[in-house]
Amino acid sequence: MNDTFLKACRGEKTDYTPVWLMRQAGRYLPEYQKVRSKVDFLTLCKTPELAAEVTIQPVDILKVDVAILFSDILVPIEPMGMKLEFSESKGPILYDPIRNDIAVSKLRKIKSEEDVPFVMEAIKILVKKLNVPLIGFSGAPFTLATYMIEGGSSKNFINTKKMMFQTPDLYAKLMDKITDTVINYLQAQIDAGVHAIQVFDSWAGILSPYDFERYALPYVQRIVSTFKGKVPVIYFAFNGSAMLKKVKQSGADVLGIDWRIDISDAVNSLGNDVVVQGNLDPCVLFGTKDLIREGVSQILQGAKGAKGHIFNLGHGILPETPVENAIAMVEAVHELSAK
Amino acid sequence: MNDTFLKACRGEKTDYTPVWLMRQAGRYLPEYQKVRSKVDFLTLCKTPELAAEVTIQPVDILKVDVAILFSDILVPIEPMGMKLEFSESKGPILYDPIRNDIAVSKLRKIKSEEDVPFVMEAIKILVKKLNVPLIGFSGAPFTLATYMIEGGSSKNFINTKKMMFQTPDLYAKLMDKITDTVINYLQAQIDAGVHAIQVFDSWAGILSPYDFERYALPYVQRIVSTFKGKVPVIYFAFNGSAMLKKVKQSGADVLGIDWRIDISDAVNSLGNDVVVQGNLDPCVLFGTKDLIREGVSQILQGAKGAKGHIFNLGHGILPETPVENAIAMVEAVHELSAK
Repeated sequence: MNDTFLKACRGEKTDYTPVWLMRQAGRYLPEYQKVRSKVDFLTLCKTPELAAEVTIQPVDILKVDVAILFSDILVPIEPMGMKLEFSESKGPILYDPIRNDIAVSKLRKIKSEEDVPFVMEAIKILVKKLNVPLIGFSGAPFTLATYMIEGGSSKNFINTKKMMFQTPDLYAKLMDKITDTVINYLQAQIDAGVHAIQVFDSWAGILSPYDFERYALPYVQRIVSTFKGKVPVIYFAFNGSAMLKKVKQSGADVLGIDWRIDISDAVNSLGNDVVVQGNLDPCVLFGTKDLIREGVSQILQGAKGAKGHIFNLGHGILPETPVENAIAMVEAVHELSAK
Repeated sequence: MNDTFLKACRGEKTDYTPVWLMRQAGRYLPEYQKVRSKVDFLTLCKTPELAAEVTIQPVDILKVDVAILFSDILVPIEPMGMKLEFSESKGPILYDPIRNDIAVSKLRKIKSEEDVPFVMEAIKILVKKLNVPLIGFSGAPFTLATYMIEGGSSKNFINTKKMMFQTPDLYAKLMDKITDTVINYLQAQIDAGVHAIQVFDSWAGILSPYDFERYALPYVQRIVSTFKGKVPVIYFAFNGSAMLKKVKQSGADVLGIDWRIDISDAVNSLGNDVVVQGNLDPCVLFGTKDLIREGVSQILQGAKGAKGHIFNLGHGILPETPVENAIAMVEAVHELSAK
């Protein structure tokens, strides 16, 4: 197995900088579109053979150094007791948003092997087939809470912040339940064979650093400390680039960095005892190959002071991205970082 | 006239920290709603007496230390030759988005006194009536360009970045035209009597620091250098907290700071030769009065090392905000900062 990614996670020297792309299995690939045309999004997540198939596609096509399970961060929320739907226009919808004690009390703590067996089955297929490591993942508790409280995505997250600010005990009760679910879910993925885990805090950046520390970070710390030393743990607090010192307090082995910060500034802020992952603006993949190569080169240079570097985009690859440009990015990373 | 705000802009000592709220004239005020119920949004912007009336409302109700002209950043875009509409559900719509050389060439450079006379008339009414200074404003060129290229708001701004990355000369031609318009528009506002100007770069934060420096900053620098020394210039690069050193290169007297950074970290990054404005999370106004007071206190403390501090939210006040909490915030700033 190509272990460059896992070595980089541990801060060990590698022959070149490993690379993958957030959302690398997905809509920009015609091969994905073909599979997806047969089933809806949630069915794709719940069918192990198909989820495994689209997970492998970018490894073959882009030659990335690691696979990430095809799934959605909201998958474990459904068995907690919320009806989930993916609307083409509105994105995810969670019916009957959680806004009071009765609703929080009703939420179940999931048993992953029984409630979402398809995830573990997909992982078992993948670890047999892949020649690169496999990343398992979960949404971070705060991000999952925003979806559950808002009932989907949101512009200003007023309901979430109202619960935080007005009824902090209720908020903590909800977060504890979600954190238990996340820990159970990630443990089941590790038991099934994933080699590393990433915790996606997609909405951490709507919090002030002070509120992040109070209302999001402690729950991430509980997750990271549970798995630390077992498998590499990656934590990605999207839009958190102006509070990286607090993000580092998560204790994660690897920190995802979005494209809003010069990666050399991120490394300066974080120090040389943590691995960084990132951080090309996904839109650079709409530019010329020269521009992509220039962007890759800058980031490789900028990350040199870190304990280690895993190249990635600063956010998920966009559906309209030309596949050849994603390939060009991966090639540029491999070529420019090779000794 | 209460000149506390203007003194703070210049970095002079003040008896207390001046305060205002972005979007302080607007939907959270029943008094605004009453005026707005008679006319649509764009008509309100274009009717000097009504625009002046709603501009004054928050000064009377909240006791803020400065007024900001009620208008919209897209107002000068319409006479450049784009049809503008405000949809209750979708926000601003600009028809026939600008995506090629013919479209850029067709855009007019506006003559503010002829094209948007209502803005200057509102300012003239206001400077007679107000007992606090008046801020004039404009969108920053990059932010205006995103609306013109996308045809409204956007999720990923792919069309804007495509133009930047694929046809940089065309992008520069568009930006030059917009910058000329902004300079003409702000000059007309100053001639009509505004005491300070704010340049809103609401979408600067979608750019990497590298692209901000290349595709947005030079145009802001041209605007700031035009007005520097004439009236205080405030520059607000929203979601730019991880690249404040570059934002500072704008040369503005005052920098707006959003809530994603601890203001003491912002001051550490910026140094003690620039005034900061910000940065309470607008959602804190949904909390208790104790929480609001605590948030105000932290920010006042954190900003102490700066050349000066103007208290504000880190983004616009939200429509659902309880007015009494906005009043409590202003009172807390005045009380806690007074010597």
